[in-house]
Amino acid sequence: MSRTYDTVSFLSDLGYESEHVGVVKAVLRESAPHVVVIDLTHGIAPFDTRGASLSLARAVPYLTEGIVIAAVDPGASSERRLVAVEVAGGAGIFIGPDNGVLAPGVALAGGAERAVVLDRDELHLATPGTTFVARDVFAPIAALLANGEDLFDVGTEIDPSLLLPGIVPIPREENGGFACEVLWVDRFGNCQLNVSLDDLENSWVNPVQRVRVSFGDTTRNFVVAQSYAELGQGAAGLVIDSGGLLCVAVDSGSAAEQLRLGEGQQVTLQPGGDEPAVVTPVSLRPSH
Amino acid sequence: MSRTYDTVSFLSDLGYESEHVGVVKAVLRESAPHVVVIDLTHGIAPFDTRGASLSLARAVPYLTEGIVIAAVDPGASSERRLVAVEVAGGAGIFIGPDNGVLAPGVALAGGAERAVVLDRDELHLATPGTTFVARDVFAPIAALLANGEDLFDVGTEIDPSLLLPGIVPIPREENGGFACEVLWVDRFGNCQLNVSLDDLENSWVNPVQRVRVSFGDTTRNFVVAQSYAELGQGAAGLVIDSGGLLCVAVDSGSAAEQLRLGEGQQVTLQPGGDEPAVVTPVSLRPSH
Amino acid sequence: MSRTYDTVSFLSDLGYESEHVGVVKAVLRESAPHVVVIDLTHGIAPFDTRGASLSLARAVPYLTEGIVIAAVDPGASSERRLVAVEVAGGAGIFIGPDNGVLAPGVALAGGAERAVVLDRDELHLATPGTTFVARDVFAPIAALLANGEDLFDVGTEIDPSLLLPGIVPIPREENGGFACEVLWVDRFGNCQLNVSLDDLENSWVNPVQRVRVSFGDTTRNFVVAQSYAELGQGAAGLVIDSGGLLCVAVDSGSAAEQLRLGEGQQVTLQPGGDEPAVVTPVSLRPSH
Repeated sequence: MSRTYDTVSFLSDLGYESEHVGVVKAVLRESAPHVVVIDLTHGIAPFDTRGASLSLARAVPYLTEGIVIAAVDPGASSERRLVAVEVAGGAGIFIGPDNGVLAPGVALAGGAERAVVLDRDELHLATPGTTFVARDVFAPIAALLANGEDLFDVGTEIDPSLLLPGIVPIPREENGGFACEVLWVDRFGNCQLNVSLDDLENSWVNPVQRVRVSFGDTTRNFVVAQSYAELGQGAAGLVIDSGGLLCVAVDSGSAAEQLRLGEGQQVTLQPGGDEPAVVTPVSLRPSH
Repeated sequence: MSRTYDTVSFLSDLGYESEHVGVVKAVLRESAPHVVVIDLTHGIAPFDTRGASLSLARAVPYLTEGIVIAAVDPGASSERRLVAVEVAGGAGIFIGPDNGVLAPGVALAGGAERAVVLDRDELHLATPGTTFVARDVFAPIAALLANGEDLFDVGTEIDPSLLLPGIVPIPREENGGFACEVLWVDRFGNCQLNVSLDDLENSWVNPVQRVRVSFGDTTRNFVVAQSYAELGQGAAGLVIDSGGLLCVAVDSGSAAEQLRLGEGQQVTLQPGGDEPAVVTPVSLRPSH
Repeated sequence: MSRTYDTVSFLSDLGYESEHVGVVKAVLRESAPHVVVIDLTHGIAPFDTRGASLSLARAVPYLTEGIVIAAVDPGASSERRLVAVEVAGGAGIFIGPDNGVLAPGVALAGGAERAVVLDRDELHLATPGTTFVARDVFAPIAALLANGEDLFDVGTEIDPSLLLPGIVPIPREENGGFACEVLWVDRFGNCQLNVSLDDLENSWVNPVQRVRVSFGDTTRNFVVAQSYAELGQGAAGLVIDSGGLLCVAVDSGSAAEQLRLGEGQQVTLQPGGDEPAVVTPVSLRPSH
């Protein structure tokens, strides 16, 4: 008995200004009308493979069984391959370019078990151009898989271990501290770091209540809180965010703006000092 | 017989740039796959409880039976409670923080009949952090209710009359006129006031054809029109908008930009004078 | 036997900041709960009938059978009519204002076969204002048609040949070349022209490999490529886009920004010269 799917989770950098996302869904609906599409986001910055791979990885633990399409493909280069990757005994199939965008999500889903390169042109949509692979390749392949086609029937088998790995930055332990970076700045200005409280406590042995946080020429002695409100209105600190990572946050404000932090910025963490945690509202500092 | 629901209307300030909205829907779909989600909007400005409550209230008269999630929660403070509120004999259940965001919508739906605080942690999603209540609390509770769970089984009963009231500004009658404010500026630059033509005609007795509108150091003698086009291309006036309220509008243009009006701005209305209504295109006036 | 529909494709300039789009869907769901809505886009610039008509036309070849709503209506003028237009023996019905926004899409779908003006007020939603026609007219009419009502029962028959035509600009052949314009700048900065490679090859007889492209005071000798990647990282050229039209593109970059091209700009194409195609990365040129 072949396995069918009734959910497609869809992430892209196609944006909301044009009909692109809708057209991909129309192609899906034409061939697999039973499928429900969950839009993860189409607001990934154009060509931002890193941001897309992190967004997908944050979503993966919450996705229901089904197919995932990740369409972020800088240059739509002829050198990268388009692939479909099966995980978790067939509970999920990831479709996208083999440019690293799928890798962290696939890893979180247990790793690639079977993989194909999507090279069977006769299964793709015949269109006047070749640049819109989400419409012409990903949607019709997702429809075939949703309708019960086996992975090996929609492309040519490849060795899953040769898929391009992702680029999740790992924090380095150095000088008794952690050299981290800002993985992501969310809509509210919270700056997610690539380190968890567990990482700190495993290394520093004791429960961590304060952390000395340095970036650029700034050093702050931050409390670690479970919620933004614990920081107190307008105050900055470290909050354990919804993914379990530490993030630099300001209660009811934007840490990114007020502390001038951005994605990819280097941040070092050291055990917090004796002086009281800073609770002065950040908004009193000179601002840009 | 328990009541089930197959529609969830969802409004938030989660934005379109990240996977947040999609993750909430994925959690819902996992536990209540029959539910259709209608996205009211996720473009509420971050932390804008007032804007969210007004948006929800504008939508409520048109919603179908079902569950409403309103996830706008500045600070995600530990002080405010998360609640579910039943209206209209069970035709609808509103889920959100008890911070006023639900209040105008609940009032328009006939008022809160039963309410619970969402304090049963064992019904919520176990996740690595506590900051994403739409994913961890609202979605699983909505799924339980959609599947037929009774309101009193998903939390602890509270007195509906003690829910935090909303903050819809009421116009004041003074000096024979109305002191109003701009409730909302829509995408097209129309500036919705918190007063209807009926309000004016009830107070001024006669049918109203012209209104003297003052804001900042500007006073204009505006016609009242049923449609933007009635004003004439580029001309400003008062239009009865889609919610039945008066709005300052410019035909085929942005009243907010051309008249420099913004949300929350004070506007006074007086019966219109004898001079002809202004029909000079606003674009001829000096502009910023 | 009456024909029913289960898909509504929906395009508008209602934006994502407010509840407007959600309210239209709520009205649809109330009366036709079996219908699935595919959002083509709601990010059309306010009042941009031209952009909307081109977006719709690009989507039409990929839409599944069903109803299309196009709600872009500058001024919501009382002079233009609201119409429903049947195509392809009933495979599709387009609903929108008769202001040209439907015309190119209808033409691509084979042309209008039957049409009505939506003048039966008793079928529309009774609401406090008249300005929100997508909610008050298009949604209830779409629901009626989706449920099997005949086109002629939801309005008054009109002559389809008298519908307002669209405004798709046609390239002119002159001086052995083509006078074109930029139809559309997409999110990635690709500038779609209103001409295809076939147009060029039909006129110039030989296969086209290079094209001399002039706009403003710039002339460039561009290669014609099948994909962005063929241009080479950062290089500009002409790419056959997903609609089969030529577009001025920069691999992994924005042609609109780097070459200062915008929608509606005039561009002339001449057969390419002998000098080598420009492959210098555009980013080396002085930039704004």
